[in-house]
Amino acid sequence: MEEEDSSQMAKATPAYMEEAQSNEEEERDPESNSPHQSLLKRNRTLSSSPLALVGAKVSHIESLDYEINENDIFKHDWRSRSKEQVLQYIFLKWTLACLVGLLTGLIATLINLAVENIAGYKLLAVNFKSKVNSYFYLKQYWDDDDRYLTGLAYLTGANFVLTSIAAVLCVCFAPTAAGPGIPEIKAYLNGVDTPNMFGATTLIIIGSIGAVSAGLDLGKEGPLVHIGSCIASLLGQGSPDNNSKKWRWLRYFNNDRDRRDLITCGASSGVCAAFRAPVGGVLFALEEVATWWRSALLWRTFFSTAVVVVVLRAFIEICNSGKCGLFGRGGLIMFDVSNVTVRYHVMDVIPVTVIGIIGGLLGSLYNYLLHKVLRFYNLINQKGRMHKLLLSLTVSLFTSVCLYCLPFLAKCQPCDPNIPETCPTSGRSSSFKQFNCPNGYYNDLATILLTTNDDAVRKIFSSNTLNVFQPMSLLIFFALYCILGLFTFGIAVPSGLFLPIILIGSAYGRLLGMAMGSYSTIDQGLYAVLGAASLMAGSMRMTVSLCVIFLELTNNLLLLPITMIVLLIAKTVGDGFNPSIYKIILELKGLPFLDAHPEPWMRNITVGELADAKPPVVTLNGVEKVSRIVDVLRNTTHNAFPVVDDGVVPPTGLALGATEIHGLILRAHIVQALKKKFFLPEKRRTEEWEVREKFTWVELAEREGKIEEVAVTSDEMKKYIDLHPLTNTTPYTVMESMSVAKALVLFRQVGLRHMLIVPKYEAAGASPVVGILTRQDLRAYNILSAFPHLATSKGGGTN
Amino acid sequence: MEEEDSSQMAKATPAYMEEAQSNEEEERDPESNSPHQSLLKRNRTLSSSPLALVGAKVSHIESLDYEINENDIFKHDWRSRSKEQVLQYIFLKWTLACLVGLLTGLIATLINLAVENIAGYKLLAVNFKSKVNSYFYLKQYWDDDDRYLTGLAYLTGANFVLTSIAAVLCVCFAPTAAGPGIPEIKAYLNGVDTPNMFGATTLIIIGSIGAVSAGLDLGKEGPLVHIGSCIASLLGQGSPDNNSKKWRWLRYFNNDRDRRDLITCGASSGVCAAFRAPVGGVLFALEEVATWWRSALLWRTFFSTAVVVVVLRAFIEICNSGKCGLFGRGGLIMFDVSNVTVRYHVMDVIPVTVIGIIGGLLGSLYNYLLHKVLRFYNLINQKGRMHKLLLSLTVSLFTSVCLYCLPFLAKCQPCDPNIPETCPTSGRSSSFKQFNCPNGYYNDLATILLTTNDDAVRKIFSSNTLNVFQPMSLLIFFALYCILGLFTFGIAVPSGLFLPIILIGSAYGRLLGMAMGSYSTIDQGLYAVLGAASLMAGSMRMTVSLCVIFLELTNNLLLLPITMIVLLIAKTVGDGFNPSIYKIILELKGLPFLDAHPEPWMRNITVGELADAKPPVVTLNGVEKVSRIVDVLRNTTHNAFPVVDDGVVPPTGLALGATEIHGLILRAHIVQALKKKFFLPEKRRTEEWEVREKFTWVELAEREGKIEEVAVTSDEMKKYIDLHPLTNTTPYTVMESMSVAKALVLFRQVGLRHMLIVPKYEAAGASPVVGILTRQDLRAYNILSAFPHLATSKGGGTN
Repeated sequence: MEEEDSSQMAKATPAYMEEAQSNEEEERDPESNSPHQSLLKRNRTLSSSPLALVGAKVSHIESLDYEINENDIFKHDWRSRSKEQVLQYIFLKWTLACLVGLLTGLIATLINLAVENIAGYKLLAVNFKSKVNSYFYLKQYWDDDDRYLTGLAYLTGANFVLTSIAAVLCVCFAPTAAGPGIPEIKAYLNGVDTPNMFGATTLIIIGSIGAVSAGLDLGKEGPLVHIGSCIASLLGQGSPDNNSKKWRWLRYFNNDRDRRDLITCGASSGVCAAFRAPVGGVLFALEEVATWWRSALLWRTFFSTAVVVVVLRAFIEICNSGKCGLFGRGGLIMFDVSNVTVRYHVMDVIPVTVIGIIGGLLGSLYNYLLHKVLRFYNLINQKGRMHKLLLSLTVSLFTSVCLYCLPFLAKCQPCDPNIPETCPTSGRSSSFKQFNCPNGYYNDLATILLTTNDDAVRKIFSSNTLNVFQPMSLLIFFALYCILGLFTFGIAVPSGLFLPIILIGSAYGRLLGMAMGSYSTIDQGLYAVLGAASLMAGSMRMTVSLCVIFLELTNNLLLLPITMIVLLIAKTVGDGFNPSIYKIILELKGLPFLDAHPEPWMRNITVGELADAKPPVVTLNGVEKVSRIVDVLRNTTHNAFPVVDDGVVPPTGLALGATEIHGLILRAHIVQALKKKFFLPEKRRTEEWEVREKFTWVELAEREGKIEEVAVTSDEMKKYIDLHPLTNTTPYTVMESMSVAKALVLFRQVGLRHMLIVPKYEAAGASPVVGILTRQDLRAYNILSAFPHLATSKGGGTN
Repeated sequence: MEEEDSSQMAKATPAYMEEAQSNEEEERDPESNSPHQSLLKRNRTLSSSPLALVGAKVSHIESLDYEINENDIFKHDWRSRSKEQVLQYIFLKWTLACLVGLLTGLIATLINLAVENIAGYKLLAVNFKSKVNSYFYLKQYWDDDDRYLTGLAYLTGANFVLTSIAAVLCVCFAPTAAGPGIPEIKAYLNGVDTPNMFGATTLIIIGSIGAVSAGLDLGKEGPLVHIGSCIASLLGQGSPDNNSKKWRWLRYFNNDRDRRDLITCGASSGVCAAFRAPVGGVLFALEEVATWWRSALLWRTFFSTAVVVVVLRAFIEICNSGKCGLFGRGGLIMFDVSNVTVRYHVMDVIPVTVIGIIGGLLGSLYNYLLHKVLRFYNLINQKGRMHKLLLSLTVSLFTSVCLYCLPFLAKCQPCDPNIPETCPTSGRSSSFKQFNCPNGYYNDLATILLTTNDDAVRKIFSSNTLNVFQPMSLLIFFALYCILGLFTFGIAVPSGLFLPIILIGSAYGRLLGMAMGSYSTIDQGLYAVLGAASLMAGSMRMTVSLCVIFLELTNNLLLLPITMIVLLIAKTVGDGFNPSIYKIILELKGLPFLDAHPEPWMRNITVGELADAKPPVVTLNGVEKVSRIVDVLRNTTHNAFPVVDDGVVPPTGLALGATEIHGLILRAHIVQALKKKFFLPEKRRTEEWEVREKFTWVELAEREGKIEEVAVTSDEMKKYIDLHPLTNTTPYTVMESMSVAKALVLFRQVGLRHMLIVPKYEAAGASPVVGILTRQDLRAYNILSAFPHLATSKGGGTN
């Protein structure tokens, strides 16, 4: 199964790659290692394209430096840090985690407030226009058609304006703001340096408010996760752009590891703020988003989400006193179903299993179709900004028309005296809608269509409301949101996947509950909850985190056992067909995500064979001529070079002429040395004080600096640079006989950017480095392009 | 802080080590690598004692093989596995996970049933004897003292018998059954092969029933986790002892990796069964117990706990109809406080902070004192079985006397007409106790002392019961359980730590609530819950899992934000003083647990220096003489040897005489080769078919086999063995210049048993292997004994 899926994915990738090439972007891998690549091109080369589709734009992709760089300067810094500085660092870590939670909570409240108010007043106005006769009935006889046309025009117009705000922002200013952002964050935490991911916080906020209040079928959950991560990234950097001055303490944070941890906190804060689910947020980050995880990080993430909840609670307290306009009802629980007493019988096993299986099937079908739609949208989006904008606005128009016109298909329902709120009251957006019905009646379809998505879910989840919705209305709702869910996600606005799936799933669950009729004693509202859960599991393939999120959304602990079973079944069924939706999007964007699980055939190839398929490695000498360094830097795009010393005398008194690996040096550090003119007139090693005079670790921690910006005179070209003090002396290495499967495990578990391959031979004159592997070299797709026979070879069972 | 703690630990270790040495146990490390160790002993040697205290007995400790062994035979097996076999394997994995859940659920129910009934009838009888006057008051005038003496005798006698059952089982038959088992499981999942850990399931069950119903201050939670893991281990092995015949399918499970996963499922099932908390169980396993974690495992663990919950629910349904004797009330929630409406004000921040801080202080104080008590107990336990038994029985006697006599100190309370159940009714063990009070009155201290521990917690957690308990009574309760909690844990019966801590914590919390008086609006029952949570966090230092366990125990989602804050504060405060209780126990037992976090000073030493401090490595040739192999195996205790080929011709045509590392061979596999007489008359490499004729991978997967059992004739001694096909060709390696900190990260993240050190030099005639590192070599304590100057060196900030 797994293999089939990946080959399907592999087929999908070239589609955008061809376009990428036609874009005439530079194509060399900045991390593979060979100069003058085009001259040395071999017959069988490990092609490693470093391009990916980020925010509908093809970009260069590099890796992050999660490895601890143990060069002399950094080591000296660690040793010289005082107790005070260490405490400063720890204090800073926790302060930033707190700030991330605080800001995410504030922004989430702001978005909620804005959305509820904008959408609320919009719907009130539409409602007023459509229902005008109930107030003015006696005064004048409006034409019915006119009245509804005005309403439709109002709704469509308002939605159009709101969508265009969101779309223009995304298209013109922040292409990365489009979509949910979760796949990109997932890739970032896996070690992929997704470009421009964490910039436009403000734009995402405004875009998300616009898109959600425009009534589009998308949620604010994904964008909130994105916003949380952006805030974390900004806080970690100290300023929106890299060049401005930074807060002094923040210099301890100038490394990818600490930023990664902070972004994990941001992602879980985002989920927490979206669902008001602190534990669910932590688990979501743990199960879905993060690649590395430590107990300490669990704790810090938990702290961030605790802060978010406190902020949310405080605002809910304030809003409960009515100061927040149309926002203000309800507590911390979003879709409370705790009033239902859950009782199971053995007979309920059958409906629960059915929900799970159908949920899994629908979920994987959704994934499949969404994949097709996204590929189609990519083709449109590539044609230019206008096309993107038009696509978004078309979807908005279609949505508005459907939302307004479909309710006419529903029959009017008489108000149920047992459920007092069914009868339309003053016209608040939360209550049941009269729409085109006479007094004492309500339109059930209008009730769930002409409202915010959150309210629609709340209505469908509502329990002890047996005949409030007609099956026909729910069926129309279900069909509409299936279509909208597929065609809305790919447009150029910030859009989450959670809510669309919950909408489809709840409708499907409630329909199934109706179909079960008297067979089962489970309430229809609970069917809706289980349906939503099953579709989420069928599409996103999470288990524990979804379970906790649903628990925290619905506040009914007794529902837990059946929720667990539904989730497990739906995930199992879904996994039988295709990978999770996030994985599909990752593949579609071409982000070089490394899976935890090596493919079985990776056991049949060694890293030595991989290295053979790549151009030979470029090594530098410990004390190297400036001219050679400049030449190497200008003619390659690699980000690291092994540093080798020739002719050293090993201490145990072996044969002369031994070569020694000193370590691995980063391009950025060499550029720093060139910029600082760290030149020696003769070939010798430097003293420690010489180095420390020139470099501070703070400067070295910067990853900026391009060789093009460095001017070297011809006099300087003849000088030497001592690379030793700048070299990471402890790179992780594998022997050339190591299988790719095990090397991949090492690479991913330790979070590497470069992995040195050392020979298994010990011989005089041999090079001590066989090659360098990067993330791109270890991707299944790239290996299979160079070694197509592996795809058919067998690697045995999953382990 | 961290360093101080570890040095304190280091001081603690020698105490038992000296005793271990006086026990004249063998002392060589079976995994370090040198023959004739005593002859070669150097001045400065990396001492690596492989001894640990398992079940009050000093044992040899080895590591588990979590690394994938890629030798020819295993590789051939993977390649030749059919699709069907792979499916069989997957099916088996899930079936076993299901069985683990099923059996754990059943056993948990059984234990609960037995405990509630035994303890219930015991207490009924005691109650009857003490209260006899309320029934027979008019018939005859018993002497008060006599009556109470009979009651005391009953209670003490019953508890004595129950304790002796538990203690005799633990002392005589299953020493590993004593204690909670969680530290040992934690070590196992870290890769430590804790001996005899997973044997005596039945004994643990009976012992736990005896100890808990004896009214001792201990819980069934820890033992249930132990039982879950034992079941998992037994199922994975297919039979209680290794020698009997195994089910055919189970051969795919004959590796440490799959067993590790299954034991993780078992541990979380145990927690789930103990607290009826499925998500909490998964998170406990994730946060506290497991070292490695994958998304797939999360899912399988979740499945196991789902099965447990279904089983528990089914039994609760059955018992609700009254078929389970005294067991039967209550639903899935153990300490339900969902009836309390939680409302916070800003002013509540102060009491919440106070609870957290005091909880953290008390928790770390508890850890500190428990450590002292356990060391003292170790001294007693070492004196022999009788001493152990006597210790247990003394504690039992002391507990019984306190439980019965202390209630006389409490004043009688008049029954509160608002709380109908306060007035003693028929004398069921769950209701309030009259004890020595006149009718219409109850004894509040007897109510919480003369009952099961679970019921006591339930009473103290009870909300809307403002004046039911007097502060004096709670203070006595608190003091008593502090003493009992310290002195009960170390005795030789299966004992959990959760419940004692919850008991102390709840009393402390409620007392604090009383002290706050009218200042705070939080209910006293909630104070008790928060107190218990804070003490747990202060002692065990978990966050997310405790939070979810408390959520699932109390079913009050609105309590979540303050629980989170209390947990965070308590853990932070506690971490300032000492490590978590499980870590203390691990250290005390001498189990070589590897922390995720290397010590800062580990950056200042390289693996090459470690290797220098060890005796030189013993390598074998690819085709080796039998006599040498036998000599090496007999004179060393090492479990793996590097296999090296001399004089090979590297393919790229370098200088002749290159040496090549072929890989690493396990002792068990060499012994297999000797047993199978896989001898060659001449020095040559074997063909593939020759090997496959002799060995099947199933045989090779067995880790049994000792060199002493192998008889080799002197003729055979002259023959050769080709070790190539049995050698793991892809061992993980590090260069000698690698810092110990980074090597430790690799060792732990990838789950290694041996790590090869390769030279950084490339020279003719040099050995391609510098050394081998094992778990023991990487332990901070061992390194510091060999390199004492490191302790004072500075490694810089935590990273």
